[in-house]
Amino acid sequence: MLIQNIKQSKGIEVCLSPALFPFFDCTEKIVVIVDILRASSVICAALQHGVKFIYPVSTIQEAFELRKKGYLVAAERNGIIVDDADIGNSPLSYLDGKYKDKTIALTTTNGTKAIEVANINNNIIVIGSFLNFSVLLNWLENQNKDIVILCAGWKNHFNLEDTVFTGALVNELLKMNNNQYTTCCDSALASIELFKATNGNILHFLTKSSHFARLKKLNLINDINYCFSFDKTKVIPMLKNKQLVDILKFSEFENVLI
Amino acid sequence: MLIQNIKQSKGIEVCLSPALFPFFDCTEKIVVIVDILRASSVICAALQHGVKFIYPVSTIQEAFELRKKGYLVAAERNGIIVDDADIGNSPLSYLDGKYKDKTIALTTTNGTKAIEVANINNNIIVIGSFLNFSVLLNWLENQNKDIVILCAGWKNHFNLEDTVFTGALVNELLKMNNNQYTTCCDSALASIELFKATNGNILHFLTKSSHFARLKKLNLINDINYCFSFDKTKVIPMLKNKQLVDILKFSEFENVLI
Repeated sequence: MLIQNIKQSKGIEVCLSPALFPFFDCTEKIVVIVDILRASSVICAALQHGVKFIYPVSTIQEAFELRKKGYLVAAERNGIIVDDADIGNSPLSYLDGKYKDKTIALTTTNGTKAIEVANINNNIIVIGSFLNFSVLLNWLENQNKDIVILCAGWKNHFNLEDTVFTGALVNELLKMNNNQYTTCCDSALASIELFKATNGNILHFLTKSSHFARLKKLNLINDINYCFSFDKTKVIPMLKNKQLVDILKFSEFENVLI
Repeated sequence: MLIQNIKQSKGIEVCLSPALFPFFDCTEKIVVIVDILRASSVICAALQHGVKFIYPVSTIQEAFELRKKGYLVAAERNGIIVDDADIGNSPLSYLDGKYKDKTIALTTTNGTKAIEVANINNNIIVIGSFLNFSVLLNWLENQNKDIVILCAGWKNHFNLEDTVFTGALVNELLKMNNNQYTTCCDSALASIELFKATNGNILHFLTKSSHFARLKKLNLINDINYCFSFDKTKVIPMLKNKQLVDILKFSEFENVLI
């Protein structure tokens, strides 16, 4: 009976930097991309507030080329909006529904690069943030597949906020009924410990982190507060034909994807 | 006064995998290589117990080539001694002084690869383990240089035991007088949290870790216990002319190095 349970369990692995992703075998696994400050949060907020789909690209040039095809350009580097872009990298930009039914080309310092790194071998790629925490958890539970969580970090360096979010997610996944998930991945175990070290006050814990300081210096404290809010959205952003759509509403967009 | 203090402070960064090392600028910094289970511990134990110097190499072939020059071959892959090697990767092999005055070519799954990765631009490379914890701490304090701690991990993956050791070391460095050291590196902050999560019982905490399980399965529990013992040695292994020597005794070996 025990053996049967172990066989049925799905694995969880955590990749702490896009530069480490090549050392993971992601065949037939779900890859959850995490860039809490702020790409993951932007993507969830945008899709929740009516953006039709988001085309993530690595370079600023690619984003501006998509403008010719009717996309708005959301572009950020080092926390700051890129010159001549339509939108920066603040999830708050989307809350008033201003970009409803628009299509957006998104390029950011870390998040969109992580998506590019993970987008190999037809992996299933979804986006995770505090903003879609519960809906993501429920969705993952229903897929019953092995999971790799990829933390976008900062320019290939480890960061605290992505790992703390990951710890919160892994902690809940491991609590699920019937030992649906298990892990023997040290990064996953470490992420749980880091989440527990927050003692229920994630924001306070993360005041020490490097990117928190960077964004605070840029007067982005409202962005930070929003990005650390649980369950403000009910979307599962998934990469489909190179673009991110809310998979929970995918059928209605399916025929308009390029 | 505050500004003066900040300027005087030396930085601490933590690199969680050899694959992330290229993203660190180590110019004029001290690189501390950490592979608790077991290369770091082996190197400390060997030099403490009379081994003259250790030539770390990445490949098994290189190690056997050095045999022709009179070196004993200490070689391990995946926790197991390599066929035809003289010694495996157990620090206990050295405790009875059997290898006193010998020279050893060492190749291991992770530790010697980490040394190779770090050995660029004439970095100052030293070896850290629980076995030389206090002597290393005192030595670092006297150098007054920026520090990068490189965790060897497991085949480029993050591991818990190297990070917990790192957290113990960083925690002590940050406590030093006059804010001699400071850090704004998220990996350093995370390592401290992981060390604190051990609640004073590192071995118990690490029973969950992947490599602990791997070595336990190989009946290496005595090795594990030794590797987690503080201050069993008083050596600072440093890479000099491609070989590791105890820098505290370096002058007497200087003229025999190749």
